[in-house]
Amino acid sequence: MTFLILSYPARVATFRQVFARDLPEVGFADDAGAVDAADVRYLMTWVPPEDLETRYPNLELLFSTGAGIDQFATMPAGAKLVRMVEEGVTSLVRDYVVMGVLGLHRDLPAYLEQQKHKIWKVGDFAWADQRRVGILGLGELGLAVANALRPFGFQLSGWSRSPKSIAGVACHHGADGLSAMLAQTDILVCLLPLTAETRHILNATLFARLPRGAGLVQAGRGGHLDQDALLAALDSGQLSGAFIDVTDPEPLPADHPLWHQPRVVLTPHIAGHTRSETAAAATVENIRRHLSGLPPKGLVEPGRGY
Amino acid sequence: MTFLILSYPARVATFRQVFARDLPEVGFADDAGAVDAADVRYLMTWVPPEDLETRYPNLELLFSTGAGIDQFATMPAGAKLVRMVEEGVTSLVRDYVVMGVLGLHRDLPAYLEQQKHKIWKVGDFAWADQRRVGILGLGELGLAVANALRPFGFQLSGWSRSPKSIAGVACHHGADGLSAMLAQTDILVCLLPLTAETRHILNATLFARLPRGAGLVQAGRGGHLDQDALLAALDSGQLSGAFIDVTDPEPLPADHPLWHQPRVVLTPHIAGHTRSETAAAATVENIRRHLSGLPPKGLVEPGRGY
Repeated sequence: MTFLILSYPARVATFRQVFARDLPEVGFADDAGAVDAADVRYLMTWVPPEDLETRYPNLELLFSTGAGIDQFATMPAGAKLVRMVEEGVTSLVRDYVVMGVLGLHRDLPAYLEQQKHKIWKVGDFAWADQRRVGILGLGELGLAVANALRPFGFQLSGWSRSPKSIAGVACHHGADGLSAMLAQTDILVCLLPLTAETRHILNATLFARLPRGAGLVQAGRGGHLDQDALLAALDSGQLSGAFIDVTDPEPLPADHPLWHQPRVVLTPHIAGHTRSETAAAATVENIRRHLSGLPPKGLVEPGRGY
Repeated sequence: MTFLILSYPARVATFRQVFARDLPEVGFADDAGAVDAADVRYLMTWVPPEDLETRYPNLELLFSTGAGIDQFATMPAGAKLVRMVEEGVTSLVRDYVVMGVLGLHRDLPAYLEQQKHKIWKVGDFAWADQRRVGILGLGELGLAVANALRPFGFQLSGWSRSPKSIAGVACHHGADGLSAMLAQTDILVCLLPLTAETRHILNATLFARLPRGAGLVQAGRGGHLDQDALLAALDSGQLSGAFIDVTDPEPLPADHPLWHQPRVVLTPHIAGHTRSETAAAATVENIRRHLSGLPPKGLVEPGRGY
């Protein structure tokens, strides 16, 4: 009964230490070439091996190293997929999104553009209680973001596939709920999982439903965003600014116009990053849950895509 | 007994409405040329009139329209100076500073520089509980910033002239306290009042006391910062980035190198802005306090400078 982790040495070292201390009854391996594939009950990786479906016949749990799992298009029979839910990645994403929301609230894209042209010009002011922030996706990340934004006094709403109830957040769901929320959103945050239903959800139709001059914080997945539609919406003034952390493809090609759109702050997929210490503890807990017959936290429902 | 406000028409209109409703016993005027100067007991302005010391012989309270009061170098005999303390300006400054702190925490200056050169490169990660934020100035603004940063998990410390005690903030004071705090500060926030003691406090000596690679959020006054020292500290790598909202002079001349220092985010003194609605209510309350023999909130102590 072995846990195999495929990652970089520093992360492996942390996991090895935590597993040796807290889960010694499970074998630990980090070399796919040296391990007996039949022993591997638990696999953690970011990139799926090419022969994933057949390589580990006794695989029970496949852990994604990160919060995203859309790279695991096909799964071995009998194995369950688990996305990373751990406080380290949640807090980084929260900090990035709040930075982006405050940056849009305080008109940072416009001031960055002014700075390039050495223009000292004070724009209009709005206060947080006059800004409506809409959050797409109300899972662990969306909830953490809502909780972090609430004390600033923003008007908060959120949208998710299934109905949710969060204190201080006007919660919407379904197609009608999405339109209703968009019409009342000055700053839109995307934290959705990437599924067939959410691919290219950030498109020209969606941008047109926002009030003119709205802003976007995109910390979901590159596949959510129609990049051409974003550029057109920024050029027309329908959107006034955007923080974009994920693109399609990644890295973004050097000749892509997103790099130099003046109202785009572009970061290289750094909003979230799994923290080895807390991730190792969360993984040990999840294996213990599994061994006790409980579902692991972050279990992906087949067919739903998250 | 007249309140004279010298400001732009929209602000005057808001004050007029609030005063008519909540303080009808005090006259209201907005035209310095038309008012009987002897009637003016209360004056609100941002720029002091040239003949301030003699023009209003019965002046009791001089209200600054903003949080800063260092422009009022000389005061009429018998009049007291009151800086603006109102939730609108506090919340804007809080939002700007938290944006700056999160921007430095998430390495935004480095990523903005990369974006200019179309470089997709993921840097190192640090979590909020590994970042030490030091706040210079623990008045209304510093306290609001500390309260807003606390939920993110930053290690917080603060420095003020007199000893303070704030939950979750390691409070320092005096010259020794400043050195002690700087040595433990990754992100430095300046929210000090500008006085003879704090002029050019952000200088080469101070920057050298910070850990290498620290960041700066400057939302105080232009006179706090030795701009040449900032440029040198950024060039040498002693500082890794800065959000600068105030300069000396303002506007910053178009040929000043701060405009295009790649690790500087420069905004045109927009961190704070008095909100007319809440400021009018706070001013009415302060006049009522004064009429009842209480000191107004924001009363400036002569000689202390804030």
